[in-house]
Order: sequence, then structure tokens, then C-alpha cells
Amino acid sequence: MIKINENYQKLQASYLFIDIARRVSSFQKDNPGRELIKLGIGDVTRALPKACIEAFHKGVDEMADDSTFRGYGPEQGYEFLREKIAENDFRARGADISADEIFVSDGAKCDNGNIQEIFAQDIKIAIPDPVYPVYVDTNVMAGRTGNCIDGRYEGMIYLESTKENNYIPELPSSQADLIYLCYPNNPTGASISRKQLKAWVDYARENKSLILFDAAYEAFIRDEKVPHSIYEIEGAREVAVEFRSFSKTAGFTGTRCAYTVVPKDCAGYDSKGDKHYLHGLWNRRHGTKFNGVSYPVQKAAEAVYSEQGRIQTRELADYYLKNASLILQEMTGLGFDCVGGENSPYIWVDGKRDSWEFFDLLLNKAGVVCTPGAGFGKCGQGYIRISAFNNYDKVKKAMLQIKQALAE
Amino acid sequence: MIKINENYQKLQASYLFIDIARRVSSFQKDNPGRELIKLGIGDVTRALPKACIEAFHKGVDEMADDSTFRGYGPEQGYEFLREKIAENDFRARGADISADEIFVSDGAKCDNGNIQEIFAQDIKIAIPDPVYPVYVDTNVMAGRTGNCIDGRYEGMIYLESTKENNYIPELPSSQADLIYLCYPNNPTGASISRKQLKAWVDYARENKSLILFDAAYEAFIRDEKVPHSIYEIEGAREVAVEFRSFSKTAGFTGTRCAYTVVPKDCAGYDSKGDKHYLHGLWNRRHGTKFNGVSYPVQKAAEAVYSEQGRIQTRELADYYLKNASLILQEMTGLGFDCVGGENSPYIWVDGKRDSWEFFDLLLNKAGVVCTPGAGFGKCGQGYIRISAFNNYDKVKKAMLQIKQALAE
Repeated sequence: MIKINENYQKLQASYLFIDIARRVSSFQKDNPGRELIKLGIGDVTRALPKACIEAFHKGVDEMADDSTFRGYGPEQGYEFLREKIAENDFRARGADISADEIFVSDGAKCDNGNIQEIFAQDIKIAIPDPVYPVYVDTNVMAGRTGNCIDGRYEGMIYLESTKENNYIPELPSSQADLIYLCYPNNPTGASISRKQLKAWVDYARENKSLILFDAAYEAFIRDEKVPHSIYEIEGAREVAVEFRSFSKTAGFTGTRCAYTVVPKDCAGYDSKGDKHYLHGLWNRRHGTKFNGVSYPVQKAAEAVYSEQGRIQTRELADYYLKNASLILQEMTGLGFDCVGGENSPYIWVDGKRDSWEFFDLLLNKAGVVCTPGAGFGKCGQGYIRISAFNNYDKVKKAMLQIKQALAE
Repeated sequence: MIKINENYQKLQASYLFIDIARRVSSFQKDNPGRELIKLGIGDVTRALPKACIEAFHKGVDEMADDSTFRGYGPEQGYEFLREKIAENDFRARGADISADEIFVSDGAKCDNGNIQEIFAQDIKIAIPDPVYPVYVDTNVMAGRTGNCIDGRYEGMIYLESTKENNYIPELPSSQADLIYLCYPNNPTGASISRKQLKAWVDYARENKSLILFDAAYEAFIRDEKVPHSIYEIEGAREVAVEFRSFSKTAGFTGTRCAYTVVPKDCAGYDSKGDKHYLHGLWNRRHGTKFNGVSYPVQKAAEAVYSEQGRIQTRELADYYLKNASLILQEMTGLGFDCVGGENSPYIWVDGKRDSWEFFDLLLNKAGVVCTPGAGFGKCGQGYIRISAFNNYDKVKKAMLQIKQALAE
């Protein structure tokens, strides 16, 4: 008899963004023709940078001719891309990462979930609250938690990120083996200082833990004091895997390219306590269960590092940061406590009422879609996340409509 | 302490094709300038069909303009592609499959490995021998086997495909819960008749088993008696998941697009024996750990079903089939027993000596790269797989060089 993975039954309702999509589509059905401004799901809205488009076309043209055609590429990604990533995203910032420590993939979400496969079943997971739901759900599916009781899974360590600790959680009081961190943070938009991040690296080194550092939003950092990579911190090469994506950096959410850094110094341990390097394990997993990213897509990603590509992606991030700045200013002006909106495309708003209630109010009264904070965890209750990914004029209009809705 | 998944330590050496690549590169280092003809890894060599290139470019152009730009798409794939797949690949052949039973992905290899996550840990796996190594390795990594003893993993049921049974294994004598089948077969090139496939579907229905049917090579079928899809068999909707790919069909190995069919009638069971539909489980897995295929790539895949696309992909497959026919004829002429080469791009050759010995002989004496059969399992020992994916003139030359090498 073919038996199912019963861990799936522990999962609570459906994936947050599917839930939101359902409410939105029901609103649209009831209000045909009414315009909705979407500041919910963190999806970019502006065209790919010109440099990427040109390189993308060239890559497609190569596929059109037998003499330049490319079949299977290296599972880890083409050298031309890995080398540029290592040079520009790391070595240029003093982070010692080499090309063969970069694994190119089709998405940080995939990598984030898949990396768990190289770890033992009985490790202790520490997850921020609020958090990107994928970190939690993938661990539940893998059977690394107990049941969900009152919104929290048994066996998981929750790292509370609240107004009181400025959205940087305290170090865990019990042993955490695998620690998820994301900065600039999704959903709060908070950023971490080098000193604060160093404390986590030190904790991991002392406790033989591993940090999964999600830096998907690093392109939005403008403050010199905020680290772009965990490898800017001394000792991180031994205890941290970093996830990056072109999704938010260069508008690749529909184009699909990301990468994961597994430094060769990063180790895990077997049940006898013997050391094993994670690079080899991940390389095996990646080579066995993945076939590389589409060649023209990798060419498009490479163009992010060209002279024009750099200027254009910077402009792209600046555009969304201008939106973020407006949202932060307007929501603060309306009397809400906010974090994020600087070095981040997200603004985390204390709505002073139930998250879904605020979500519904903004949807129905203001025609604005945000994301209810409660969907990100218990500590998100009472908050909403507003995303800066949209057209500036639409963001302006959304802010006006929110102002009017709240004045009613 | 971060503990590793110790199942990885059970894996034998490295992935077959990485092993071959190593021998080839060492040969090239020792013989600089000497031309090698690659008939090893099943990778296409000819340009993408024109219709696909045009659609690919159009997709990229849409990404260049804010008004037509696409961000995150549906994880399951765009409706425009899923609908065409259901209509052309299934309903046109009398197989009752609907668009929402299709899950578009970036590769059949990924899907093949990932689908295991929705099953319980303690199911019994049946795997053909010889077999595409990914089926085995991914189950080992997931901890569904014991150790490897004398080339076989404990706890796994091996379905022997030999000359004696015409490369169609007998039904298992003990209960198999998850059964891997691949037809037209990789590596043997053998195809299965409707009657033979029906026996497997019946077995699965009687035993509440699930068949994972890999039909990556269906585009090479020319014989009316050979089924293109398992869903041409009555009752298969309840007990089979099918994997398809544009890799071999339309030359997408470097472009990356595939799909998996999970019919809504397909069920698994929990430990209480209650029925659960696999469609919902896979949908949850796919939505949580995958973010959809690149939009321009999906546009390129859609073009496979256009009038020109159909003609061009048919021509592409015919080209490789002509190569296959030549290889089959020549190797048979040299006195080797062969299977495949019809309805398949692979020719499975009984080399009458050790697989790796034959591999090395062809590499060093004939300058031809094939794949040693032993790399596909115990029953592959003594065989090699020759792939028809190359230029016709090169295949001709390879056959001549093999003839000369064997005459030495």
C-alpha cells in the first residue's frame, strides 16, 4: 500500500499567499471593475533591466544555432555566472567566497526548502516569528516538528522579533542546531547591524549550529552600517549558508534565477560526532536532483554585473525604495508605529487591531491589498506588511485611499 | 550540533555521469587535440525548433516592458501551457487528463526526486535494473534503503530487465508500494506494449501501489502499438503519476521545462488506511517549495504545440531516430546483440565483456564516448548504452571508428 507523508496533515490551512489570493479574487468577483492596488505579495512590477533583456535575447539566439546551442549545463551553474557573483557580491565587499562555493538555482524558495535534505531528521530548528512561512512549512513537511498547537508547532524554537527587541531576536536559551535568519527582514523590513549579526555567528560557532542566512533583499541596503552578506562577519564561513536571489535585485521573479552559497569550511556532524563538509553533501544533492538553470536565464543574470546592468538594477531598487519611503512616511503620519521602509522594500505596520481585520478593511474600504502580519506567525498578530513593489503613482494613490478609508 | 543526513554516506561513489565526465576529461588532457565523439550522456545537440525560438524571444520582449512584464507566475505553470499539454499530449490520444492535473516544472529529474516527499518513509520501493541512477540515489538519500551490498541496496525490490524477459521485468513477487517504470526505456531503449503495461496497472490497482511512469522519451515512438502515456491504459488514472519533459522532445535540455501529471483519482493511504488524494499533496509541495518555470521558457514550450512547432519537433526526433537506426544496424552488423534504437534514441548493446572495459576501449581506441551499462545497475553489467543524440555525420564517423577499433 502506498502510504502518504502524514506530516502534511499537520500543516495549518493553506499557504498564506494562496489564502490572500482567494480573498482578493472573491472581492473582485463581488466588485467587478473596481481597481485594486496590490501591495501584498512581494512581487516586482517593473520590466527587467535593459542589459538583462539584451543578454537574454543573445542567449536565446545561441540556442537557435547548432554551433552555439547549449544542452545540459553544469548543475551548479555556468562558470561565467558563478565567477561574477563571487567577485561582485562577495569579494568586492571583503567576503572571502569563491566561485565554486556558489550554487546557481531557479529560486531561493526551492533552495531554502531543499537544503534541509542534507541534515538529520532530529535536529532542533530555530525560526524567527514573524517569519516567511516557507521556512516553517517545509520543516513541518519534513517531519521536524510536532503538531500545531495554538498557532505554534511543537518542538520548534521560536525567535520572537518584536517592537521590544527592535525586531532582532535574542539568542536562543536552549540549543538550536539549524537557525533561520533573514536580513533585511521579510516580513518586518528590519535590518541587522554587523555587531548583532556577529553575536549570532559566535553563538553558532560555540554551539556547532548552522545559520541559514536569507539575504534576498540585500539590494535594498543603502546604509553603510548594514552588512550585505553574513560572510562580512568573521567566522561565518564555518557556520553559515547564504541564500540570494535575482528576484528582488533585478526583477527576476518571473524569470527565475537565484543562488546559494555553501562555503567549503561549513561543517555538519554525524551521530559519532565526526565532521563532514556540507559543500560536498549539497553538491551531491544539487547534482542528483537538479539539472541547472536555463542557459538564456543565466546569461540574463550575468548581465546584472555588467556596467549598465549595475546602474540599471541600482535604479530599479531605488525606485522601489522611493515607494517604501513614501509608505513609511504616510503610515507614520497616520499615527502607526512602523519599521522597515529603509534598506528594505517592506514596511511593517502596527495596525492596533487584528491583522486580518485590518487586511479586510484595507481591501474593502481602500481597495488596497497588503499582507496580514498574523500570516507570518504569532508575533505578527496586529501587524500588516505593506510592500513597496508597485508603480509610484499607484503607491501614492493607495496611501491616499488608505487615508480616506481610515477617516471614514 | 548540526547533524547531517547520514543516508548520503550509503551512496556509492559519485553520480554516474560525473564519473564518465572525469574519465573523458582525463583522456582529453592526455590526448590534446584528438576529437571525441560523444554518444554518452543523453543530451541533445541540435538547435531549438524555430517556432520555440520565436516564442522565446517574444516572451523575453514581454519582460522588457512594464505593461506586459510578468512577475511570479502560478507555481503549477501557466494555464496557456497546461491546457495545450492536456489537449495535445493526452486527450488527443484518448487519455482523459485535464489541465489542472498537469504540474509544469523545470525538469523531470527534479520532479522524479521531489515527488517522494509526499510519501511515507517506510514504503517499499521497486526499481528496474538497469535503471536511470537518479531513481535509486534519491531513494537512498531519503533513507528508504539499507546499505549497499554487492551493488544493491538492502530493502529495495529490483525489477530485473534482461535479454531473457525482453527487458520488461516480471511483476514483483512481494508487495511493492512505489514502482518506477520508464518506457521507452532509459537505458535499454526497449518499449512496452499496451498489454504489458496493463499488467502493471492491474498489479498496482490490486496492491494499492503507485506507479511512477517516466515517459521522457515518448516523442521517439513511431510504432502505433506502443503507448505514449500510461493513461492510455484503463484504470491508470487511479494508480499512476507520469513524468514528461521537453528536454528530449524539443531539445530543451539547456532550456529547462518539463511536467508531471498527477490525476485527481490517484490516492495514497495514511497509517489508519484512510484514503488521501495525491493531487492535493503534490500541489502543496509544489506550491511551497517551487516558484514556477521562467515565463519566456513556458512560452517557448507552448510553441511546441503550434502547427510549425509540431512539424519541427517531429523532424527533430526523426533526425535522432535516423542516427539510432544507423547505430542499431552497425552494432548488430558487428555481431552484437542489441535492443532499442527503434521508438527510442538509445541502443543497448551486449558488449560481451565488462562494461567499463568496453567503455574504456571505445574511448581510447575509437574516440567514442558511450555509457557503461554497469553504471545503471547489476543487470547492466556487460552492456553499454549508445545514444543517438549527435550529428548524423559524427554518428557515422563514430560507427566507422568503432568498427576499426574492434578490428585491431
